Amino acid sequence: MEEYQDIIKELLESASADIGDIIRIEKKNREFEGILMPRTEREAPNHIVLKLDSGYNIGIEVTRDLKIDKIREGKELEMERRGVKVEQDEEKSDISIIGTGGTVASRIDYRTGAVHPAFSASEIYNSAPEIADIANISTINLCNVLSENMSPEIWTKIGNAVVEELNEGADGVVIAHGTDTMGYTASALSFMLKNLSKPVVLVGSQRSSDRPSSDVSLNLEGAVTTASSDLGEVSVVMHGSTEDDFCLIHRGTKVRKCHTSRRDAFQSINDMPLGLVREKKVKFFQDKRDRGESESVELKDGFEEKVALVKITPNIQPEIIRNLVKDDYKGIVLEGTGLGHAPESLFSEIEEAIEDDIPIAMTSQCIWGRTNMRVYSTGRDLSNLGVFSVEDMLPETALVKMMWILDKTRNMEKVKTEMRRNIAGEISARSRHDTFPKTELPEDG
Amino acid sequence: MEEYQDIIKELLESASADIGDIIRIEKKNREFEGILMPRTEREAPNHIVLKLDSGYNIGIEVTRDLKIDKIREGKELEMERRGVKVEQDEEKSDISIIGTGGTVASRIDYRTGAVHPAFSASEIYNSAPEIADIANISTINLCNVLSENMSPEIWTKIGNAVVEELNEGADGVVIAHGTDTMGYTASALSFMLKNLSKPVVLVGSQRSSDRPSSDVSLNLEGAVTTASSDLGEVSVVMHGSTEDDFCLIHRGTKVRKCHTSRRDAFQSINDMPLGLVREKKVKFFQDKRDRGESESVELKDGFEEKVALVKITPNIQPEIIRNLVKDDYKGIVLEGTGLGHAPESLFSEIEEAIEDDIPIAMTSQCIWGRTNMRVYSTGRDLSNLGVFSVEDMLPETALVKMMWILDKTRNMEKVKTEMRRNIAGEISARSRHDTFPKTELPEDG
Repeated sequence: MEEYQDIIKELLESASADIGDIIRIEKKNREFEGILMPRTEREAPNHIVLKLDSGYNIGIEVTRDLKIDKIREGKELEMERRGVKVEQDEEKSDISIIGTGGTVASRIDYRTGAVHPAFSASEIYNSAPEIADIANISTINLCNVLSENMSPEIWTKIGNAVVEELNEGADGVVIAHGTDTMGYTASALSFMLKNLSKPVVLVGSQRSSDRPSSDVSLNLEGAVTTASSDLGEVSVVMHGSTEDDFCLIHRGTKVRKCHTSRRDAFQSINDMPLGLVREKKVKFFQDKRDRGESESVELKDGFEEKVALVKITPNIQPEIIRNLVKDDYKGIVLEGTGLGHAPESLFSEIEEAIEDDIPIAMTSQCIWGRTNMRVYSTGRDLSNLGVFSVEDMLPETALVKMMWILDKTRNMEKVKTEMRRNIAGEISARSRHDTFPKTELPEDG
Repeated sequence: MEEYQDIIKELLESASADIGDIIRIEKKNREFEGILMPRTEREAPNHIVLKLDSGYNIGIEVTRDLKIDKIREGKELEMERRGVKVEQDEEKSDISIIGTGGTVASRIDYRTGAVHPAFSASEIYNSAPEIADIANISTINLCNVLSENMSPEIWTKIGNAVVEELNEGADGVVIAHGTDTMGYTASALSFMLKNLSKPVVLVGSQRSSDRPSSDVSLNLEGAVTTASSDLGEVSVVMHGSTEDDFCLIHRGTKVRKCHTSRRDAFQSINDMPLGLVREKKVKFFQDKRDRGESESVELKDGFEEKVALVKITPNIQPEIIRNLVKDDYKGIVLEGTGLGHAPESLFSEIEEAIEDDIPIAMTSQCIWGRTNMRVYSTGRDLSNLGVFSVEDMLPETALVKMMWILDKTRNMEKVKTEMRRNIAGEISARSRHDTFPKTELPEDG
């Protein structure tokens, strides 16, 4: 690694080439010409990434015999591309891109190997200038947070920025966000944004380490297209396959990152995605809230921080629940087994927690399917103790929702009623089409 | 409900019909004849279940106009069927069915509505006597535990029963088990059974509430077929689709219940299933350990009970980790975000735990994909604190494995080495085929 960095450093320095410059690379009788792109962390360290005229990024393996020439400075180019942005087209939607951090907004310096997560919203825009064909783009650099470090405070900050943009006339908002907790933030926005009637789209990047070509471009194109569409709710837009062919539009409360590294890691759970974007065209296949000319959007913010998500396992020790009561937790979401179960050995601690006015909601670690606590004796016993099912709500969504509700009320009955009321599509209709995903078997499976 | 029970009670009493009796039901000019089957909890309360001559169960909705006649006592029948069992066929494998409880072993009394989870292994056998065509069956009633109440003590009890059966000459063992924690028990057995060279198959039942016909029959047929096959390891055999057409054979350390109620809820994660069973024929499509003529099986039992599985969420409070240290936990498995991340706000507590000799393994709540802590700064920071990745191991499997290892050693380095060593197929080869399941989209997705 060290070694490659040295070679790259030397090559770039001798050509005085900087990120954004147009360069020509000669390697074994082949020539490549394009914009020198920032390298992101996950890409192979021995590659230089060029954005070609076609819009695609390619990675070129660096060897000693490689030759680099600078053709043009990046500054001018930057100016040119920014020009597109300034030239407002009245036919197009006005879309605001809010940068919050994450892979979509991180890059690595070729010369030092240091990480620059401070890849701004305008730089994101510059990495996919094609989106200017879809909409008039404004960019806002809100913060720079890796999504594992997101918090209710930042959810609120994002919510405020969305409200400001929409109420000042934006037709839609795109939020560039790290993928790790994008589903949690999408849920938080789904609950907070009152009177929402325009698209609020979260987008991120899952670029695979073996491909220097980035998925930012297609995801951003899909997100901006969705933000310009007829949708009136919070969604997540990410690759729908491992090919660069289409993006899926997922409802903010039903989406989950289901793979650590694949581009199509995001899946709608227990419900169809809202739709897809292919070649800058949106196609919906779900009931959705449509864009409307509503009153101004409001932010109902506020999250109770003392809410725990507890995954039930065989032999889970009762002190796990007891400590939450002792530490003054205000609510608990259980990720139960099967239809919504927990071992008998926890019953007395669960009873004590509920007697202490701590609401306990039941979800399932199966991820797919609906909890039902009337089927087996364990479920009925837990119901009798006061644990309540939240139907087919995702555990992650239930956590965020309970944090949000407990800020508004501590009345046990009200918390239960609100948790079981469908506010933002978090509970699917029982009549829905079952969307359990299947593994493709080698043959005649 | 009450009402239906009263009608059923009346009808059965006036015909003096008992479970196991052959009865005839007349309803609206149609006649049904078969064995009166026990009703299981999840089946519609207004149905009587008959096993027809074809071997299939049907549910008949009870109405006042329905007529029941008893044709023959169940006792004789029971004798007859048990007769099959006694007639040993030397050509066939000798398979032991161990009953441990769960849906596969629960029934409800038609007359009182009371639950009888004490459906024994021999009764399970009687509910699918067809399996006598496949193998010579012996049944053992080991315990009667709903799987949410399973514990290391019962895992060990099951392990001992398996060892006894195999070492006394059984060609394979089938374990009837509740589905909720079947994956955890399968992992526990995978680690405990040393020198295993015969099939040990866990099987359960997920009967859907809308179908009085049970999935026990096909699952048991698949399990007994697998137990008679060329396999030499621990597996879970359950429906491969929602049709009664085939079962999948999953490796014990790679399987997970992924739906609360579907028959095909069990999925192999990050790896192909080992194979499938269709029409009493096994087809393998995976590298597997084959049946062998090994020395006798041994049980390496022992589980440290103070190991916690902690799911990371945005805003998770540091006291969650601090309390585990205070309560003298011996190990922690984190279900991190994405590639294996946790918020910075936990770093000092994680550091303290590791300084306190508590090993911390990293898995991912994505479920699918491999953790990799070298990609992002958060992962590298956690690695530097001493948190170690366990590759693509399931969080549930990692918990069971760490409980098992911490009983054998408390040496931090050894725990790490063993956790990262592939003992029972729990870590997939990097070259494996990616088996991420896909949701079927309405059209041109």
